[in-house]
Order: sequence, then C-alpha cells, then structure tokens
Amino acid sequence: LASIRWIPLSSLCTPAFVVDVDKVKRNAQRMIERCQKLGVQLRPHMKTHKTLECADIMTGGSRRCIVVSTLAEACFYADRGYDDILYAYSLPFDKVEQCAALSEKLELFQILLDHPDALEQLRKRPLRDGRQWHTEGVELRGVYAHCGNTYYCTGVEQIQAVAQETTKLILQFVEKLKAVGITCKSSIGSTPSCSHPVKDMAQLSEVHPGNYVFYDAQQSMIGSCCLEDVAVRVLTRVIGHCPHRNQLLIDCGWAGISLDGAGKLPTGYAVIEGHPNLKLLSMTQEHGRVEPISGELDYSKYPLGSLLTLIPYHSCATAVMHPVYHVHSEGRLVGKWTPTRGW
Amino acid sequence: LASIRWIPLSSLCTPAFVVDVDKVKRNAQRMIERCQKLGVQLRPHMKTHKTLECADIMTGGSRRCIVVSTLAEACFYADRGYDDILYAYSLPFDKVEQCAALSEKLELFQILLDHPDALEQLRKRPLRDGRQWHTEGVELRGVYAHCGNTYYCTGVEQIQAVAQETTKLILQFVEKLKAVGITCKSSIGSTPSCSHPVKDMAQLSEVHPGNYVFYDAQQSMIGSCCLEDVAVRVLTRVIGHCPHRNQLLIDCGWAGISLDGAGKLPTGYAVIEGHPNLKLLSMTQEHGRVEPISGELDYSKYPLGSLLTLIPYHSCATAVMHPVYHVHSEGRLVGKWTPTRGW
Repeated sequence: LASIRWIPLSSLCTPAFVVDVDKVKRNAQRMIERCQKLGVQLRPHMKTHKTLECADIMTGGSRRCIVVSTLAEACFYADRGYDDILYAYSLPFDKVEQCAALSEKLELFQILLDHPDALEQLRKRPLRDGRQWHTEGVELRGVYAHCGNTYYCTGVEQIQAVAQETTKLILQFVEKLKAVGITCKSSIGSTPSCSHPVKDMAQLSEVHPGNYVFYDAQQSMIGSCCLEDVAVRVLTRVIGHCPHRNQLLIDCGWAGISLDGAGKLPTGYAVIEGHPNLKLLSMTQEHGRVEPISGELDYSKYPLGSLLTLIPYHSCATAVMHPVYHVHSEGRLVGKWTPTRGW
Repeated sequence: LASIRWIPLSSLCTPAFVVDVDKVKRNAQRMIERCQKLGVQLRPHMKTHKTLECADIMTGGSRRCIVVSTLAEACFYADRGYDDILYAYSLPFDKVEQCAALSEKLELFQILLDHPDALEQLRKRPLRDGRQWHTEGVELRGVYAHCGNTYYCTGVEQIQAVAQETTKLILQFVEKLKAVGITCKSSIGSTPSCSHPVKDMAQLSEVHPGNYVFYDAQQSMIGSCCLEDVAVRVLTRVIGHCPHRNQLLIDCGWAGISLDGAGKLPTGYAVIEGHPNLKLLSMTQEHGRVEPISGELDYSKYPLGSLLTLIPYHSCATAVMHPVYHVHSEGRLVGKWTPTRGW
C-alpha cells in the first residue's frame, strides 16, 4: 500500500502566493475556445506570471506564438524551446545586440519600432547566417495596440465599445498602409476586450491578452470575469490583535501583495475572501492592518495564527513580489512554479 | 602591461538598480560613529537591502548583532556565519519550528512576543541540546519599539521630539518592569531618530535603524539626510517621445521603482536627478510617463536611448523589486550584490 501525501494549503508558511491550477486551465481554455470561435489567432502575453508551466497551459502545449514584456522573459522562453516570440516593447537601444542574437537563434523573434531612430539602430546591427531584419533591412510585420483604456470600463457594454473602436481604428490604419503597398498584420490586446470580444475582432490577425489566466479583483470590477474566476490568492495569517485601534495585524505587507489598487476597492488593497466586512486598510513592508468596514472586531473569530485569504487587486503586481508560486488543485498542493525576474 | 577594464554605469541594461558603495560605507560608518559617541549599541536592520555584502559593511565586519524582518533573512544570514540575530516580528505561529531550529543552531536568536498565546506556542516546542527559551521556558530579553511616527516628521526638531518621547516611554516601561523584579534591555529604531539621536537614547541598550545605509528621497524630505547622501538610484532610458501628450516614455515602470510614494513628491514617484523640472507622473508595469512640471518638453535634450537617473522615494520598496544590485564606485562598476527574497 502506497501512502498518499495530501498536503493542504494551510501547511504553507505565509505570506504565500497560491495558484489554483484548475482555474488557470479553465481560464486558458476558455480564451483559446473564444478565439477559435471568433476566428482570430491568440498570442498570449506572459508578463503576468512569467513561468514555464503557465505558458505551456496558455499555448496549449505548442510553445509557439507568445508575447513578452521584458528581454528577460524573451530569453527565459527562448531557452526553453519557445519560438515565435513577440517582444512587445519599443526597441530599447541598449538591447539591440541581444534582440539580434534572439533573431538569429529563433525561427521568429518580433520586435516593436515606433521611431525612425530605432530603424537606424537595426541597420547598424545586420543579422548573421543569411538572416535579415527584412526589406531594406526591416520587414513591417504588423501593427500592435493594447487598448489599455478598457481598464477604465465597467461592464461588458463599455468594454465592447472600446474593443469596437480600437478594432476599427487599427483596421483603418492597416487599410491605409495597404493603399500605399504595405500589407501587414494587426493585433490588439487587453484582457477586458478579449474576455468580451466583438465580432469585428475576427478581422484582426491576432489578439494578445495576458492577465486573463489569473484574473484579479480589478478585472472582476471591470466586468472581464467573475470573482470566482480569479485563480490566485495570497495566504496570510493573523499575527496581532490591536483592540485599541479596532484592528488586526496580518503577516502580509506591501512586499507580499504590492501597493497597487490604492483607493480602488471598498475593501482596501485586496478582497478578503469570505469576510466582506474586513478591509486591508494600510501596510508596511511586512505588516497589514485590517479593520472592519463597520462595527467592532470580534477577535474570537480571528485568533492569532488563523489564516485569511486575500484576492489581489492586480495579479500582475502581486505575482511580481513572489519568488515562488504555490500551485494547488482543490486545496491540495501539487507543485511550485518559479517565475523569471528582472530585465 | 595589464589591461584595466573600466566598466561605466552607462553600459548597464536598464532599468538597473545601482548602489554607490562609497556612500553606503560612509552612511554605515557615520551611524557606527554616531552610536559609539552616544554610547549605545547599534543593531542594524537588514530589511532594506537583504544582502551579505551590505550587512558586512553595516556590522563593520563583525557579523554579529543584526535585526531582520523575515525568517528568510534570518536563515540567509545564519547560513553565512552571522549570529546574534533578532527576528523583529511578532512570533508567527507557522514558523515556531524554524525559530526553534535557529535558536538551537545560533549562539543567540531573539524573537518578539506580544501575546500570551505566543508564549504557549514556545512551551509546546522545547529546545534541544540543553538549550531553553529561558526562565519557565522564556526569558524576556528586552522591550522593542520602532518609533515609525518619525516618518511623519519634517526637520530635525520634530524628529528629536519624537525620539525623546519614545525614549522616555520605553525607559519608563523598563523601570516599571524593574519595580516588579524584571530586568531587561530596551531598543528603539527608525532611521530618522537614529540619524539625529537625542542624548537620552544613551540610556537605551540598543538602537536598530536600517534604511540609513541607502537612505532615499523620503528620508531627505523628513530631514534624516541630504539628497546627496542617498546611495541608490534606478537607471532608466528614454524609449519613447509623445509630443501629443508633452511626455517622454522611460523603460522603468512600477516593476522597477515600486508604487511607493504616490502623491508624496512634487516630482511624482521619484526624483529625476539633474532634471528638477521633470516629473515621473504615472507608470504601467514596464513603462514610466515623464512630463515637465511646467512648459514644453525639449525632446532634443532627451534622445531615444538616453539615460535618466531616478532617486527612489522609498529605497526599501525599490530594492525589493530588483533581483540584483549593480554596485559602483565613482561610476565604475565594481560588482553585483544578490539579495535574499521571500519569507
């Protein structure tokens, strides 16, 4: 008889960033199916999680067709068998040599240019092995926009209005290019617009959302998802009772959840799961101050050492604070994911 | 003839966290001398930098008598020959076993208790090898306070008033303990109060500041230091011109400088060295938006690829975003420091 080790989430030392792998898979699969149904190529963004395991889930195992926000991510994925990587960042002049090396190594490495000086930088560094940056040194592959203004939306109607407007503008621009003899691709992104796409987005070549694999409290407020779709949490423990301030202290400060979302949520810097009357009011590096939105705290409900679960306001900002993610399925720990960091 | 490699800061890819090792040594030495002159034991805090090299400088090479904010720091230093470590954190119940292991391993490992339940936790885990938590299982070593309210001060006079008040309260409390037969130590900290100590602090057993080794824009506003004393910077490059918004884009977003300091500085999230009319207005994960405080930007002064230097609002918050610190002496790169992370 083999003994089965069933390790619960509550065994983790806190603060701990935990990922529900079933929700990650569901969020990823839904986006894949949404894009298939719409008839547009999905190019998922890696910046939210920066891990190999999550990238494999988002690409359905193909290890092709991704977007990254840093050169560190580009190298991380290129070193692990990924290809067709789009570095969605206006070409940084200090990284031309490394971009050239990736272009020589991969089947396809795409970079963004938004200034003639950047073109000059590429011309100064021709590619080796018969490769080229394309046509007179550079090939324009496509037009890329983010539609970050979807983050000011509330509800599907507003999101779709922005998605429609962005799609229209991009397609008009591509038409203008075509009129002067340049045929190229088009891509827009943002998790809100790709969670509720409009039909015309089928005319785009690609979409490039990223946050959707985790989602967060912000996305649920925008209307991209339900709070139940959010795949990540920060586990924290009560470490102090402060009856003179009607507060609890928890072991998660800004080093564990980030300062993102100040003033955005009625419950402060996070949603405290299962405790809608609690607010994460303020933080130091390693301490959080929690108080009731109304009334007096009943400290017997929150003994020292007891666990609380925080739903991050912005999962990209929270994930970046953690050197390791603890992965679980239905509350059972199943592994660890280690993100890449730096630039 | 040996060739001398002189590697300038400008060779770094950005964003990069850079540390002026001469300023670090000067800030550390000044604090050592200030405490010697006052006649109080310095127990430097490691939470700002979390590196071995900086700890060696702060302890004058003794590798004894430090404070840490996380168990990860405690283990990091204990594994590298450090001893007499104070874990300045109300005993987290999930970490009792690891605290016991450190108490068994080190000559002296000190923890903080602020609740009878915590005492119960220690009793449940007696130490091995003839060691003990002391008297009935636990020895009260001292009373520890932070005087974090010095962070609301402006100027030496206000700082010293808080330092005086905190010292008085702590010493009165120690006297009360003495009256009931308990003799113990006393320690206060905070970089502002220890940068401008009052005479009565000589009656304390210890002081435990930490940020002073780097300082930052916040400390210069409080009056703890001059802006010239700040030992750390984030190097960033101009990656975009946005004349329609009268803005520059830089390659440092909140992943490179943190969101700390929102609304606190007239120049936004950082001081942009040598450019008092520029403001770091807002950020995404990897982009910063810079605009003039008044007037129109002269883009010819900020060509794409040119370097800007950010002085962080809060160096603890900025350092934690960086997996490596680039160390220089007079602009010449001399090494890298790698901080510990996590909990």
